[in-house]
Amino acid sequence: MQIKKVAIIGTGLMGGSLALALRKNFPDFDVWGYARSEEAFKRVDKYLPGRVERDLGKLVKDADMVFFALPVQAIIDHFQKTALFLKPGAIVCDLASTKSAIEKAAKQYLPKSVKFVGCHPLCGSEKSGIEHSGPDFYQGAVCVITAKETRRETKAVVQLWEALGMTIKFVPARQHDQLLSGFSHLPHAISFSLVRAVEIRPEHIDLVPPSWKAMTRIAQSGADVWTDIFLSNKKNLLKDIRKFQAALKELAVSVKAGEKDKIEQIIKQANKVWETH
Amino acid sequence: MQIKKVAIIGTGLMGGSLALALRKNFPDFDVWGYARSEEAFKRVDKYLPGRVERDLGKLVKDADMVFFALPVQAIIDHFQKTALFLKPGAIVCDLASTKSAIEKAAKQYLPKSVKFVGCHPLCGSEKSGIEHSGPDFYQGAVCVITAKETRRETKAVVQLWEALGMTIKFVPARQHDQLLSGFSHLPHAISFSLVRAVEIRPEHIDLVPPSWKAMTRIAQSGADVWTDIFLSNKKNLLKDIRKFQAALKELAVSVKAGEKDKIEQIIKQANKVWETH
Repeated sequence: MQIKKVAIIGTGLMGGSLALALRKNFPDFDVWGYARSEEAFKRVDKYLPGRVERDLGKLVKDADMVFFALPVQAIIDHFQKTALFLKPGAIVCDLASTKSAIEKAAKQYLPKSVKFVGCHPLCGSEKSGIEHSGPDFYQGAVCVITAKETRRETKAVVQLWEALGMTIKFVPARQHDQLLSGFSHLPHAISFSLVRAVEIRPEHIDLVPPSWKAMTRIAQSGADVWTDIFLSNKKNLLKDIRKFQAALKELAVSVKAGEKDKIEQIIKQANKVWETH
Repeated sequence: MQIKKVAIIGTGLMGGSLALALRKNFPDFDVWGYARSEEAFKRVDKYLPGRVERDLGKLVKDADMVFFALPVQAIIDHFQKTALFLKPGAIVCDLASTKSAIEKAAKQYLPKSVKFVGCHPLCGSEKSGIEHSGPDFYQGAVCVITAKETRRETKAVVQLWEALGMTIKFVPARQHDQLLSGFSHLPHAISFSLVRAVEIRPEHIDLVPPSWKAMTRIAQSGADVWTDIFLSNKKNLLKDIRKFQAALKELAVSVKAGEKDKIEQIIKQANKVWETH
């Protein structure tokens, strides 16, 4: 499969870093970004000079690969917006943090003539925007692919991510969403709730230990991206929140009852689980 | 106040590091550690050669300063065990993470002739044991002192911590326990509960993002120390757990109801609070 033009729709941290990484590792590719507004155009043009397009149809009609690097719902919307223009045979990828809703939308909205390969590079950041992007952003991280390993287009996508320094893991969309709910979506829900529950006045900031900062770093994560992640993985997330609440309640009940042995047992179990990670 | 002999009861990470830091910064001090068992004696003697005592009475009877670096309940027990032997005029400090219970026990058990100064160096670690200690462990961190700033013995203790590179904050015991419940004890309760609620099978370990590791680092913290912290700060901790559970529930309810605007508002509020930290 000969790739000449790559289009990236969504040029924030993930999409911007992908553009820079592709230009570094595949100098023959013609890498284009999309900017919806004049303001975004100016911002993105600094990083992809002369390679920013404001017309979606024009951007994708001759693109051999199209990456959607947007929040989940925006990806689904842009599948619909681009469906009529995508080039037959093009490979279409997304970089979203939940995969079942995207896979369903791909089946529903994308033309049969394009090849969809769902991807989730596990290297998000609480920072956002092309200003924080870099060509080595993907280096050393894991990329989940939800498409079948044996398909020709999957192999092309694997090669591309591997060239950017990623390790590939094949996980079906449904299982991906179950696992990432616990490993990532629940921790984000907890971190957002922790900073909302505990007031820190400026005069007490010196009393905040490093562990607080580690626990709340991800509470900076963007509302647009995370609202969509929570809603598109609702069932798994609510199940994991319930499990977590039950575990915390068990600890609280033991503290309230003054059950020293039980609390020790709970913490030792946590220590033991930690060791296996 | 002339200090010749310093006794440290509890030679794990905190006490061991204190011994090494004092020997480095105050070469004239005669710094002694306590070891209850023969096995502990051998371990500690490597770090404080010839300066480990197994008899509590002998250790403290001529000590000008005595530091208690043990879990909260063990400190209270050792106040009672040493009370008869402490030298009149000696300065007694503790390094525990909760202060009200210790202050109460100091009033109840320590002889009137000694001067108690409650301390909490905010530089714990999820690691424990003298093996992880070092002379610069306290460098650059904050030390909370709960005693009155104007007292002579407080000034001596301040000078000592400052010489080890610490910044002093004066906070009354009751307020310390309220604040640290939210900043530290609640995050630990959450981290222990998170690792217990989410199963990570060995074959999925590659799918665990860095944010998980940041959130669960403190789930390694020791059961002996943390059981005592939770129990000795029960009232504040239970209140903070309730506040946190309510915040998480508010998010869960919004996710369940599919309230996009409400979820965005919750996350934006979390982002805003985070910025003020």
